[in-house]
Amino acid sequence: MSHGRIHNFSAGPAVLPEVVVEDLASQLPNFAGTGLGLMETSHRSAAFGEVVDSARARIRRVLALPDDHHVLLLQGGASTQFLMLAQNLLRGGVADYLDTGTWAKKAVVEARHFGSPRVAFSGGDTGYHRVPDDSDWTPSPDAVYTHFTSNNTISGTQFQSRPQGAHLACDMSSDIASRHVEGGAYDIIYAGAQKNLGPSGVTVVTLSPWALERSDPDLPSMMRYRLHVEKGSMFNTPNTLGIWVLDRVLSWVEEQGLDTVVATNERKAQKIYTLLDSSDFWKPHADLSCRSRMNVTWRLGDETLEKTLVAEAAQAGISGIKGHRSVGGLRASIYNACPEASVDALVGFLVEFERVRG
Amino acid sequence: MSHGRIHNFSAGPAVLPEVVVEDLASQLPNFAGTGLGLMETSHRSAAFGEVVDSARARIRRVLALPDDHHVLLLQGGASTQFLMLAQNLLRGGVADYLDTGTWAKKAVVEARHFGSPRVAFSGGDTGYHRVPDDSDWTPSPDAVYTHFTSNNTISGTQFQSRPQGAHLACDMSSDIASRHVEGGAYDIIYAGAQKNLGPSGVTVVTLSPWALERSDPDLPSMMRYRLHVEKGSMFNTPNTLGIWVLDRVLSWVEEQGLDTVVATNERKAQKIYTLLDSSDFWKPHADLSCRSRMNVTWRLGDETLEKTLVAEAAQAGISGIKGHRSVGGLRASIYNACPEASVDALVGFLVEFERVRG
Repeated sequence: MSHGRIHNFSAGPAVLPEVVVEDLASQLPNFAGTGLGLMETSHRSAAFGEVVDSARARIRRVLALPDDHHVLLLQGGASTQFLMLAQNLLRGGVADYLDTGTWAKKAVVEARHFGSPRVAFSGGDTGYHRVPDDSDWTPSPDAVYTHFTSNNTISGTQFQSRPQGAHLACDMSSDIASRHVEGGAYDIIYAGAQKNLGPSGVTVVTLSPWALERSDPDLPSMMRYRLHVEKGSMFNTPNTLGIWVLDRVLSWVEEQGLDTVVATNERKAQKIYTLLDSSDFWKPHADLSCRSRMNVTWRLGDETLEKTLVAEAAQAGISGIKGHRSVGGLRASIYNACPEASVDALVGFLVEFERVRG
Repeated sequence: MSHGRIHNFSAGPAVLPEVVVEDLASQLPNFAGTGLGLMETSHRSAAFGEVVDSARARIRRVLALPDDHHVLLLQGGASTQFLMLAQNLLRGGVADYLDTGTWAKKAVVEARHFGSPRVAFSGGDTGYHRVPDDSDWTPSPDAVYTHFTSNNTISGTQFQSRPQGAHLACDMSSDIASRHVEGGAYDIIYAGAQKNLGPSGVTVVTLSPWALERSDPDLPSMMRYRLHVEKGSMFNTPNTLGIWVLDRVLSWVEEQGLDTVVATNERKAQKIYTLLDSSDFWKPHADLSCRSRMNVTWRLGDETLEKTLVAEAAQAGISGIKGHRSVGGLRASIYNACPEASVDALVGFLVEFERVRG
């Protein structure tokens, strides 16, 4: 690792491709030879306009979005989309929500302000070990949309395929651009950037023609999807630096090709899961059928030993593997940009830890 | 100018102190020696917690805010505050709005969703050449608050002192930290960062105890001032890089001392105004009594000549002086971080332009 960087398994803001970090540093004082710094360039400039166009085109390609879907680059994170989604589309109606974890549940809370979200499935009573099969729940006949969280960062579960239900609305914050999706099958996709796409402070939102048509035309400006579509996400000053980084991160994805990224992610995840399955010393959290390729969660039998592990990992230059307080234990977030070398270092450390302490 | 930087008079995102830009570049791969990049560090980490605490303390000092006022660091820009302000505080009531330009007027539009904003003064019919005196308007006896825009970037006008009216709510986006204010005299101050504080994508909001008490407790989470106060602006992932830069920019202000910054701003502005007043060739836009120290606006008698000026300025390494399309003409945005050397270069260029073309 150059620059004295250590192994970063943070759940987000998360590690970014080192080449993008270096590229940003080089563009900060003088962006693309314009003589103006990257952060100091007008969002109305031709140079920044090209960045926005490029970023949106890359999102479209990576998500395989049909041409008639819209791509927005907003602020406020997924937490803002929990409410904007419902405020624009629910409009007093019913929607099915699949409660597969903390974030999925928060989306329900915000939607109650604008209609009747129905928790069609909840994994809460059983510790969020898994996401539902279609046999686990029945769609509401009058549901305006079906909301789900494709990957659950805290519990480490992930939908392996799209759920049933009409008009899918997906919080894809923690696995966007990490695997192939059929963008045309979703009416809304949204994602905070700080896991797989860039720094915190940028949010991607995609809308199908149906979603746009259903959107409330009478909301305050900043809450109105229609306005952001009309204005090309430039109604007000966007997070210009964040969008530039997002474009560069997606360029890094496209240069490798999504097939390669998917294969690397699979390999990285399986290296850790294979170890966790190799002895009773480790207790993986998620059910085998819905293990996340982005956030691997596990426990030891003993909380004190977990603390020791986190402390010794830190000494070995391995950061960010303490589990979320609601689950406890350990978590390795291994988004696209987490180098395979970091995963190898983690696995090596865990093998040695088990040898000494197991 | 190092790094091949040219003179940047952009209205925002605007030029930043070069030392901060260089400092950011150095921290990007490895933040404060942690081994984790600045953009790649958890917002829940101790290292970032110190940044937030420092940034909030600096805002408090620079605005001379009493201890019982609250400081928030949010996303979404002033445009989001246009609605959050009214959504939290107006609650069906009346408020006085001083319409001193495009942005002031946009605040009125958003407030209509939540009550009855009254345009107590409008400069629109007379080209927004000036801001009102207290003799120009009468406060509504039932006004919940009085909203004004302390500096108008497009027309180049600035309140020289606070207006009358109960419960002042101020959009200070374009002159925050550029002069002394008595923070205790405002119930709400808000400012997008991209002019005087940092990159785009961070918004400062300050609330008095009265403002917090009046805030609607039943709004969706991300719209609720009360929640952001309770959570110390960390309900969701903030724009971490933006907050770091904001803290560094305010450190740069505090190292000089606000007195010095104010004196420099005054000197920079007067250098340009003195030239503009020196002959009929130049036609300054704002009334003498309310000229902005942040955005100097002027015209020539001839639109073709204005275009020639902008083009020749670009050749001389002077960027961003084309006026906003709604006013036309020319504008030099000279926020805190605009070097006095850039102002000198601009004045020198204008003198020569007048000599040749005047």
